[in-house]
Amino acid sequence: MRSSEFSLIERYFRDTGLNQKSTILSQGDDAAVIQVPTGYQLVTSIDTLIEGVHFPESTAAADIAHKALAVNLSDLAAMAATPAWFLLSISLPDTNEKWLEEFSQSLKSLAQQYQMELIGGDTCQGLLSVTIQVNGLVRKNQYVTRSGAQLDDLIVVSGQLGNAALGLAHLQGKAKLPETLDSECIDALNRPVPRLCLTDFLRKYATASIDLSDGLVGDLRHIVDRSRVGAMIYRDRLPVGEWIETNSLYDYALGGGDDYELCFTLPEKHLDQLNDWNRDNQDCFLSVIGEITESGYYLTENQKIIDLESFQGYQHFGE
Amino acid sequence: MRSSEFSLIERYFRDTGLNQKSTILSQGDDAAVIQVPTGYQLVTSIDTLIEGVHFPESTAAADIAHKALAVNLSDLAAMAATPAWFLLSISLPDTNEKWLEEFSQSLKSLAQQYQMELIGGDTCQGLLSVTIQVNGLVRKNQYVTRSGAQLDDLIVVSGQLGNAALGLAHLQGKAKLPETLDSECIDALNRPVPRLCLTDFLRKYATASIDLSDGLVGDLRHIVDRSRVGAMIYRDRLPVGEWIETNSLYDYALGGGDDYELCFTLPEKHLDQLNDWNRDNQDCFLSVIGEITESGYYLTENQKIIDLESFQGYQHFGE
Repeated sequence: MRSSEFSLIERYFRDTGLNQKSTILSQGDDAAVIQVPTGYQLVTSIDTLIEGVHFPESTAAADIAHKALAVNLSDLAAMAATPAWFLLSISLPDTNEKWLEEFSQSLKSLAQQYQMELIGGDTCQGLLSVTIQVNGLVRKNQYVTRSGAQLDDLIVVSGQLGNAALGLAHLQGKAKLPETLDSECIDALNRPVPRLCLTDFLRKYATASIDLSDGLVGDLRHIVDRSRVGAMIYRDRLPVGEWIETNSLYDYALGGGDDYELCFTLPEKHLDQLNDWNRDNQDCFLSVIGEITESGYYLTENQKIIDLESFQGYQHFGE
Repeated sequence: MRSSEFSLIERYFRDTGLNQKSTILSQGDDAAVIQVPTGYQLVTSIDTLIEGVHFPESTAAADIAHKALAVNLSDLAAMAATPAWFLLSISLPDTNEKWLEEFSQSLKSLAQQYQMELIGGDTCQGLLSVTIQVNGLVRKNQYVTRSGAQLDDLIVVSGQLGNAALGLAHLQGKAKLPETLDSECIDALNRPVPRLCLTDFLRKYATASIDLSDGLVGDLRHIVDRSRVGAMIYRDRLPVGEWIETNSLYDYALGGGDDYELCFTLPEKHLDQLNDWNRDNQDCFLSVIGEITESGYYLTENQKIIDLESFQGYQHFGE
């Protein structure tokens, strides 16, 4: 890519998001400099989306930008961190100005919404691929990990499960959805909502947490493994849409990835707080789907108990 | 990539580098957590290397790992930051264990050398591509940028210029090097040395600094532009090897990229310190190649003055 093209691209990403008070030096140098406020720790994660692997070739630029940032924000949400800064490394086959305009506008919009600032990055020519590295803040040791689940904790998930996987199956011609549903499911796939609204709730009450990128069964297993506990979940408590329920397509909810809902564990004594939350936050409803046990990893389905140890995880598009 | 393959890959990257005192939570969760020590700021940068763009397909795994981390460390060096943590996002066509072993060993070795810790990352299947995001530390406001160059400052570069570009030209069959030289130049291309040895020197004396990734003329221009000054450099002061000198191949030194030497500006009053440095550090020799002027950007070559404004920058391999 000629250096004039570099500058062109870089112009699109200037002033992305909201300036942070603690940014000492932003874009335009060999590196950015940030000041972590006293009493806070930095929470940091990186995720790459590649065309043909994480999204189909037909995906709109605005959707790619949204998803690339949202999946990283979702990692911060799972840690109960507050978003602050991000870096972008983008590889593009060419400099299509319309594409860049759509991509950068969508990125800016989401960055603004969650009050993040783009402080640096890297651009090169190659197959379409977007890597975002996010930095969030937590008050000292007020983060939530995968490893704190305790015996008898409730297992909770936010929102609905399986819609993104249904949307992908629809796009790939593997599932035929009614017209009323397809755009909703494709939206779930392309425009996941990072559950940062739950940050305070998690900090106060959750013992362990993870975001659902690879599917409930595979991701909850990480909590089970790292917390050295067991789990029992119940199929009839899974929060799913009517289509999944009517057609008994629960595998989309159990193994379907890309939901980017949160799954966390909650001591039973905080059930009142969960009910209070649900009264005030219908758009981010919390469902209790099971409980932490001493050992084993099971699903109760129609009075049968199914061992989840050998459950096949979700394969992303293209895998 | 199946999740069993994921775990396989992740095993290779566990315990990479040196544990940092201030790591609160390392690999294995949705994000890592770090504590920036009181009185310090975090310096952060990201760089991607893609097969066929930044390195030829034949490049050894160990060389790719070295270079991916080294070019990021070089950005920290230019800022006068001390390396601390890094994240890795790697995309691989398949899980070749021999390749992974070589790659991870080389990464570990360089991370150890510069006392960095790998605290997280992301793995997926796709064309070979490596993104590294580095985090360094500086005492409050003790970083060096591109924008501080002052009138009459000396322009200094470390090491020798043009060797990496010669090595690439040799690999591409565009230049024929003598046998005594080819491995040295290919080494310069594949195994750049991040000039972190200069960190203290830069902090104490430099007014502006940049690392030479795209070639001297293109990169020094960033200092010139951002410092709102001019520059004059002298061809006969460029630190080049005998081959470039004898064959008058100065374009490799002026426009050749991938050197990852540092270019910085130094008030003339610190010339003594530079000479002291050179007495003690023959392996990172500093050369004064010009001076900061009021305006314009020129090269003096055989008593002729050449305007560098329209000088063509370096194209990376594959561009």
